[in-house]
Amino acid sequence: MRAPDELLRLVEDYLAGLTLSPDLGAQRESMLYALEGGKRIRAVICLGTAEAAGGDVDAALPAAAALELVHAFSLVHDDLPAMDDDDERRGRPSAHAAFGEGVALLAGDGLLVEAFRLALTYSSTGVARELADATLGMIGGQYLDITGADSDLEQLHRLKTGRLFAASVGLGLRAASVAEPDQPPWRAFGEELGMLFQVVDDILDGDGYAERLGVGGAKSLADAAASRALAALAAIPADTSVLAEIVDGLAVRTA
Amino acid sequence: MRAPDELLRLVEDYLAGLTLSPDLGAQRESMLYALEGGKRIRAVICLGTAEAAGGDVDAALPAAAALELVHAFSLVHDDLPAMDDDDERRGRPSAHAAFGEGVALLAGDGLLVEAFRLALTYSSTGVARELADATLGMIGGQYLDITGADSDLEQLHRLKTGRLFAASVGLGLRAASVAEPDQPPWRAFGEELGMLFQVVDDILDGDGYAERLGVGGAKSLADAAASRALAALAAIPADTSVLAEIVDGLAVRTA
Repeated sequence: MRAPDELLRLVEDYLAGLTLSPDLGAQRESMLYALEGGKRIRAVICLGTAEAAGGDVDAALPAAAALELVHAFSLVHDDLPAMDDDDERRGRPSAHAAFGEGVALLAGDGLLVEAFRLALTYSSTGVARELADATLGMIGGQYLDITGADSDLEQLHRLKTGRLFAASVGLGLRAASVAEPDQPPWRAFGEELGMLFQVVDDILDGDGYAERLGVGGAKSLADAAASRALAALAAIPADTSVLAEIVDGLAVRTA
Repeated sequence: MRAPDELLRLVEDYLAGLTLSPDLGAQRESMLYALEGGKRIRAVICLGTAEAAGGDVDAALPAAAALELVHAFSLVHDDLPAMDDDDERRGRPSAHAAFGEGVALLAGDGLLVEAFRLALTYSSTGVARELADATLGMIGGQYLDITGADSDLEQLHRLKTGRLFAASVGLGLRAASVAEPDQPPWRAFGEELGMLFQVVDDILDGDGYAERLGVGGAKSLADAAASRALAALAAIPADTSVLAEIVDGLAVRTA
């Protein structure tokens, strides 16, 4: 089993070698810019799941990269003035601050389609289908976020953050060709990751759950989510030690 | 062979019955709004191609609808203030004028992903792969359009308009399971459609080719494209009369 750091290096190498469609021309520069940086947590979870499930890590790389492209697409569009209006992302100018709004809009669109192109390198449609479903959930969560159409914070995060995290596990399973009947315990694990990530994120940012429950209350919520994730892993008849390490890392992260 | 009007009705019925992901919640309203109206030319070409190639029209409906969703996505994002800043589309408020910029941005994103969900209802990945490639070409064309990064009008339109028209034929062939070696003459036909559509569009709008060549020069260009399209059809060993009718309709359209 490769350690999370090794999986991260594999993803970074893969992304560094990514060939975007030549039809995009100079638009590619803004897309590669938006893809730089980030913790690659979703990709690492995907690869870790694939390997723990007995699959080939290399075979899971396109799926892992596709998750990161969808994530990058969502950040670029979220940062736009019409949405969160953030001029900074990952410690430098956000895509629209660096390239202008129009090019950033197209960069997000392009990243989304390139993600599907990666997901479509698999011989069956399952990876791309699951990615599409998760992305639609994420968009639904974004809608709740900007319209305040739903005051249910759990539902908002279950969609906006949780669906892509759950799909990180799901795509790992599909890339490893895990049979459908064997997937539920793994997927139960995936369902806990979004909540864990989001609550810790809110604690670090001092908003969301931390604002609503106080830091202590939010920490209890994160601990509970981590415990449930680890319990889900313990129920899986495979060596899931690397995934447990990822959960521990998510629970104590400081950035 | 069904006439273009019959094919149009089939598409409209299919789109009217479309089920968008429930995860999108109330976001769906803006997406359905953006999908209303339009001539459905791409979908009709797709269905007409599928039937002429000996395929089942019903089996081509998801592909035809996917083309219209990608087209609608591109219009919603094109109309945004960061792009063309058009408050009107198809004779009524554009999506952002009706729903606000943030929701319109998400509506475009959602339409794009729903298009892939439709393309992924086929058992093989070919339809979705071709849709992805064409959409990336379209985005590359948009980039040239907003940045003026390339003064070559043909290249701009070949990407921005032509790629999705060519894919309309390509998706029809794939939905009809036409073998790869039999596709080239059909695809030669598809390559001419974008130019024909765009030049006529420019004549109607009084810009682009009409501005550059004068109305007379643009009409000659449109006639030449129509002739090449009809010549390509004539070289196909099948009853392509409905596709010829579509070409004639494109050449003389007034809206």
